Amino acid sequence: MTTSTALLLADLTGVAVFAASGASAAVAKRLDLFGVVFVGFVAALGGGIFRDLAIGEVPPLAFADWRYAATAALTATAVFWLHPQLARLRTTVLVLDAAGLGLFTVTGTIKALDAGVPPAGAGVIGMLTAIGGGLGRDLLTGEIPVVLRREIYAVAALVGAVAVVVLNLLGQAGPVPLTLAAGLVFGLRLVALRRRWSAPVAALRPPRPGAPDAS
Amino acid sequence: MTTSTALLLADLTGVAVFAASGASAAVAKRLDLFGVVFVGFVAALGGGIFRDLAIGEVPPLAFADWRYAATAALTATAVFWLHPQLARLRTTVLVLDAAGLGLFTVTGTIKALDAGVPPAGAGVIGMLTAIGGGLGRDLLTGEIPVVLRREIYAVAALVGAVAVVVLNLLGQAGPVPLTLAAGLVFGLRLVALRRRWSAPVAALRPPRPGAPDAS
Amino acid sequence: MTTSTALLLADLTGVAVFAASGASAAVAKRLDLFGVVFVGFVAALGGGIFRDLAIGEVPPLAFADWRYAATAALTATAVFWLHPQLARLRTTVLVLDAAGLGLFTVTGTIKALDAGVPPAGAGVIGMLTAIGGGLGRDLLTGEIPVVLRREIYAVAALVGAVAVVVLNLLGQAGPVPLTLAAGLVFGLRLVALRRRWSAPVAALRPPRPGAPDAS
Repeated sequence: MTTSTALLLADLTGVAVFAASGASAAVAKRLDLFGVVFVGFVAALGGGIFRDLAIGEVPPLAFADWRYAATAALTATAVFWLHPQLARLRTTVLVLDAAGLGLFTVTGTIKALDAGVPPAGAGVIGMLTAIGGGLGRDLLTGEIPVVLRREIYAVAALVGAVAVVVLNLLGQAGPVPLTLAAGLVFGLRLVALRRRWSAPVAALRPPRPGAPDAS
Repeated sequence: MTTSTALLLADLTGVAVFAASGASAAVAKRLDLFGVVFVGFVAALGGGIFRDLAIGEVPPLAFADWRYAATAALTATAVFWLHPQLARLRTTVLVLDAAGLGLFTVTGTIKALDAGVPPAGAGVIGMLTAIGGGLGRDLLTGEIPVVLRREIYAVAALVGAVAVVVLNLLGQAGPVPLTLAAGLVFGLRLVALRRRWSAPVAALRPPRPGAPDAS
Repeated sequence: MTTSTALLLADLTGVAVFAASGASAAVAKRLDLFGVVFVGFVAALGGGIFRDLAIGEVPPLAFADWRYAATAALTATAVFWLHPQLARLRTTVLVLDAAGLGLFTVTGTIKALDAGVPPAGAGVIGMLTAIGGGLGRDLLTGEIPVVLRREIYAVAALVGAVAVVVLNLLGQAGPVPLTLAAGLVFGLRLVALRRRWSAPVAALRPPRPGAPDAS
C-alpha cells in the first residue's frame, strides 16, 4: 500500500516535471494556451502511451487514470502563467527532469518485463518510455529532437534500462535495487550536465564536388 | 439501420473534408501526386487510427473498412487535379472542416466510452480523434501544427468531448443530444473563425543577458 | 525450416539496409552517436512496429526478437564509423534499399492478411510497413519526408502490395509468386531511379493578390 502510493507519487512527479519541460518549450515557441497544455501533455505522457501500446495495455494509463492527464494539464497551465519565474528555477527543472528520466526508465522497463517482453526489447521500451515524451515535444515544436543531438540523456536511460533488465534476470528487481537503478540514471545525467559530456559526433569530410546527395 | 447509414455517411463526409484539407496543404508544399494522397490519408484517418489503437480496436477501422481509405484517396486525388477551383471554395472548406471537427469529436468520444475508457480519458481520446489528423498533416509538411498556434480549434473539440462525456454520465447519449454536441463544436468553431477568437499566448519577457537556453 | 531461415535472413537484410539509410541521414545532420543509432533503429524498425500495432501483434517483433534491434544498432554504429567509405558505395546502398523496399512490402502485406485484415487495408499496411521507417527517419531529422516528394518509391511499394493481395485472393501466395512480387517492387524502383521517373506535381497558379492562405 505505502509502496504503491509512493510509486504513484513518484510517477506523477515525473509527469509534472516532463509536462513543465514541454510547456516551457511551447511557451518559447509562442504557442497559445491550448498548444502549451497539449505539448506539455505529450511531453509528460507520450512515452508512456507508446509503452502501453507496445505492451498491449489498452487503454494506455494516460487515458485510463485521470490523475495523469490532470497532473500534466495543471502543470502546463501553471507554467504558462508563471514561466518568467520558472526561468529562474532552471537548475531545479534540470534536476527534476533528470529524476523523471530515471523514474520513467525504471517503471517503463519493469512494465515491459511484466508484460512478457524479452529482456532486450524491454530495455529498449524502457528507454523509449523515458525519452519518448521529449521526442514528441521536439517534433511538435519543429525541432530536431535534442535528445538525438546533445549531451548524455538517452544513453543514461539506456544504461538504467540495462541495469533493470540485469537485476530482473538475477531475480533482484526489488524496490531497493530498482530505486538504485533510477538513482544511477539520475546521477549519470547530472554528472553529464555538469561536465558537459556528450556522445561523439562523426567527422564529416567535405563531399566530393558534384557528388549527388545520398537519399 | 437508417441511423447506422446516416452515421456512416456523416463519418465518410468527415473523412472527405479532412482529406481535402490535407491534400490542399500537400499541394501547397509541392508534393507529388502520391504525397498529396498520402497526406490526405493521414489527415483524414490519422486521428481515427490513433483512437482505435488506444482503445484496442485492431485492425483500426481505416484498414478494416475499405470505404474509409477509398474516400480519402479519391478526395485527395480530386483536390490534386482541381485545387485552383478549390481555392475559390475556401469558405466552404472551412465550414465543412468545422463540421468534420464536430463529428469526429463526438464519434471518437463515444467509441472510447463504449470501449470502457473512463470519462476523462475518453474525452481526451475524442479530442485527439478530431485534431490528430491535422497534427499529422502539419508534421508531414514540416509545419508546427496550426492547431497549437491559432484560433479556437482543439478547444472547440474539447468542449464537445466534455459535453458528450457529461451526456453519457447522465444517460442521455442518444442520437439527438449527440447531434447537438456535434453542432456545438461546429458552431463554436465557426464563431471563433468569424470573430477571430484565439486562445491567449504567454507574454515573453526578454531573457536576461547571458542566460542559457532552457533545454 | 530452410524457408523460414531464408525469410529471417532476408528480413534482417532489409533491417540492415534501412538502418544504414537512417544512420547516413543522421550523420549528415551531425547527430551524435546515440542519435545516429536511434534514427537507424527508427528507419529500420519503425514501419514494422506500426504494422504490428495495427494488426494487434504485441509486443511488436522489433521488441520481441532481439536480433532485429541488434542488427539495426550494429549497422548504424558501423555507418557512424565508416560513413566516408560508405559514400563511395552509394549505388550499392540504393540497390539494397530497393531490395528492402520489396521485401518489407511483401512481408508486411502477408502478415496483415494473416492477421485477418481485409485485402484493401492489408495492402495499405504493407505499403506503410515498407515506407514507414523512411518517414520516421525524415521526421526525426527535420525533413519533409522524401518519399512524399521525389521519385517512384511508395508507388512501387503500393504496386507490390496490390500484387500480393491479388495473389492471396487467387490462392497463389506461395514462396515463388511472393518472391516475384518482391522482385517487381525492386525492379520498379530501380527502373524509376535509372530513368528518373517521378509522380506528377500539381501545377500551382500564382495566388490572387490578397487571397488569404487556405488553412
